[in-house]
Amino acid sequence: MKAEVITIGDEILIGQTIDTNSAWISDLLEKNGIHVLQIISVSDKKDHIISTLSQSLERSDIVLITGGLGPTKDDITKQTLCEYFDDELILSQSILDDITKYFDSRKRTINKLTESQAFIPSKCKVIKNRKGTAPGFWFEYDGKIVVSMPGVPYEMKSMMKLVLHKLKKQFNLLEIVHKTVYIRGIIESHLAELIVDWENDLAKEIKLAYLPSESCLMLRFTARGSDRQYLENLINKNIGTLKSLIGPYFSKYQTRLNEEVVGQIMKNTNSTLSVAESCTGGNIAKMLTSVSGSSNYFNGSIVAYSNATKENILGVKAETIFKYGVISEEVVQEMAQCSQKLFKSDFAISTSGLAELCDSEGVKGGTICIAVATPLDIYSQTVTYNTDRDTNIIRASNEALNFLISVADK
Amino acid sequence: MKAEVITIGDEILIGQTIDTNSAWISDLLEKNGIHVLQIISVSDKKDHIISTLSQSLERSDIVLITGGLGPTKDDITKQTLCEYFDDELILSQSILDDITKYFDSRKRTINKLTESQAFIPSKCKVIKNRKGTAPGFWFEYDGKIVVSMPGVPYEMKSMMKLVLHKLKKQFNLLEIVHKTVYIRGIIESHLAELIVDWENDLAKEIKLAYLPSESCLMLRFTARGSDRQYLENLINKNIGTLKSLIGPYFSKYQTRLNEEVVGQIMKNTNSTLSVAESCTGGNIAKMLTSVSGSSNYFNGSIVAYSNATKENILGVKAETIFKYGVISEEVVQEMAQCSQKLFKSDFAISTSGLAELCDSEGVKGGTICIAVATPLDIYSQTVTYNTDRDTNIIRASNEALNFLISVADK
Repeated sequence: MKAEVITIGDEILIGQTIDTNSAWISDLLEKNGIHVLQIISVSDKKDHIISTLSQSLERSDIVLITGGLGPTKDDITKQTLCEYFDDELILSQSILDDITKYFDSRKRTINKLTESQAFIPSKCKVIKNRKGTAPGFWFEYDGKIVVSMPGVPYEMKSMMKLVLHKLKKQFNLLEIVHKTVYIRGIIESHLAELIVDWENDLAKEIKLAYLPSESCLMLRFTARGSDRQYLENLINKNIGTLKSLIGPYFSKYQTRLNEEVVGQIMKNTNSTLSVAESCTGGNIAKMLTSVSGSSNYFNGSIVAYSNATKENILGVKAETIFKYGVISEEVVQEMAQCSQKLFKSDFAISTSGLAELCDSEGVKGGTICIAVATPLDIYSQTVTYNTDRDTNIIRASNEALNFLISVADK
Repeated sequence: MKAEVITIGDEILIGQTIDTNSAWISDLLEKNGIHVLQIISVSDKKDHIISTLSQSLERSDIVLITGGLGPTKDDITKQTLCEYFDDELILSQSILDDITKYFDSRKRTINKLTESQAFIPSKCKVIKNRKGTAPGFWFEYDGKIVVSMPGVPYEMKSMMKLVLHKLKKQFNLLEIVHKTVYIRGIIESHLAELIVDWENDLAKEIKLAYLPSESCLMLRFTARGSDRQYLENLINKNIGTLKSLIGPYFSKYQTRLNEEVVGQIMKNTNSTLSVAESCTGGNIAKMLTSVSGSSNYFNGSIVAYSNATKENILGVKAETIFKYGVISEEVVQEMAQCSQKLFKSDFAISTSGLAELCDSEGVKGGTICIAVATPLDIYSQTVTYNTDRDTNIIRASNEALNFLISVADK
């Protein structure tokens, strides 16, 4: 089963928007046994859309289109598909009702342009948009499928669930089994070296992918075949061998995100956690609170960007800052302990550093101090990054969580 | 002058890697008057690459290819281009010297695979790789240009400077002028209705694009022609008319991000700001601190996720929470005022709500209360979103900043 993804919109072709939709769709299709042959971005021009669509349908069975469904003049996907399928637009009362309801709930009045979104191609099946006003369209033609969805990521993602369900029902897909293992404490090239023989001996049904991320390193096993149980056993057997081979690097927490691992540890040990952030500016709190149920163990954070806040609200001693400098392990240790006291938490994390790459007051840009306070001890470390400011903050936040994971697991 | 970008590599088609190269290249070309007609991602398969390249060369004058130049078996771009141009690989001593030097400087030994990178198509001009070992190739054929570069972003970017220089020398390029205006306080469809006549009367040289984002709505003007000054004047004239037409919706802050607008207001009014976040969990602090120089006006934030933190650290009265419920305008008003007092700040923002979509204790999921405290007044509002948890947090954070912008500008 072969598919193509077409993204329509000038904003991608002039480089203003990075096309993240296509990667998301391709990942989802691939995981469900549909191979993506080509990804194409074209502009909002009728002839161009039509020739691209024809070529895609010559090569593939399924074409998923995103973008160009807005109510404004520059959005022409719907009209173009009508022309391609020799179809006409008719008013769908049910969609009009949905749009009216959507606007009513937001206390906004519907206008002619928005109303035009209720006109749909007569030959298509409508895919309802639960997150916005532009419906999606499912066309079938000559045994092939063309689906048109909005380009707004959360609208498209919500629609893709329905689309995938329909695709799975319509086609008899090969079984695909994916399994991901999580590896912490070793970098990609070192791991690859460590497992080179094991990797060469992998069964031919298994494909292995290295997926590095800011949180941890993942290895994804993919196996294709007709017998699901056989594929699952095969993958599990290989994971067993891998585990014995790499020992402690094989994370006992089977989840990518460090904030989720922290959540599991806090729940398992019935502990609470608080934060005091300087250079990470709220990012660690944001990561921790993104975990569902985090309110049960996360007591809160103080974003202490200025020295005044560090002293007056957090309670760090002015002399510590004066003596060691605000970017020092002494200061982050005190910040963590103050946060622990203030929030009455069992564990606390703190950061202070220069996220920017430019040096300042004798400190090298990218230098970040991190501390972790546990019920018994206090730990600290200094890291130096040389990526850009945003990346440095993401890396330091993950390092802080990894640091907590490693000391809490001792 | 029309160009296409082809990315070669399975990692993009299975959704493992998001193609950021194409957006970067397109942005650069567009700004230099080369219009990108299509962006295509294909797999490492010879026939597929050849048919894609042929089609691109039928439509466009320039084809820029990235990826598939590595030394390993799955990289076949070089061999495929040789076949396409009926060419053969010959050893380039100069490239071999470069590779040897590159490896020597890293104290690594060169192997057969790496050495193979010094074999280059005889008909091409070589583009040297200053950041890695795989050289790029510049082919000219029938007045058209095909360039092949590595997929590693920083290697490609460094090569693109040379490529652009050569392209500019070779072609007499049309001028392209882009200008973006920022619109706040009105949604896309309402704006489109408001400016429909103006839009219909736009000069034919101008193309208009609506670019909605979580922060604000952008309108991008693009004009193509031979006289840059004329195009700039034309766009400016039309922006002038637009401004008089939409009045207050035309943001006087010419920047997309609300956190940057907040920064400008704080600097202009010599004010300081603090935050008290419940459901946004640190995201507002993270946004504010992402602005360079924010330490001059951002005093800090308390992430008060639990009632205990709201009461003990922030100082919200227990009876307010008891009487009105923790998700209420009364509570966020008090949170903002407490934050203002605690951080001695002129302005404060606060949030409390249910970011998740599931209802809880009589409150509808997605309901979020927001308050803004100014030196004189206190404002609050309640919003209800029905996107996913993460998106709700992003929307509420932006709404809070927009709320601050609107009241601070009164």
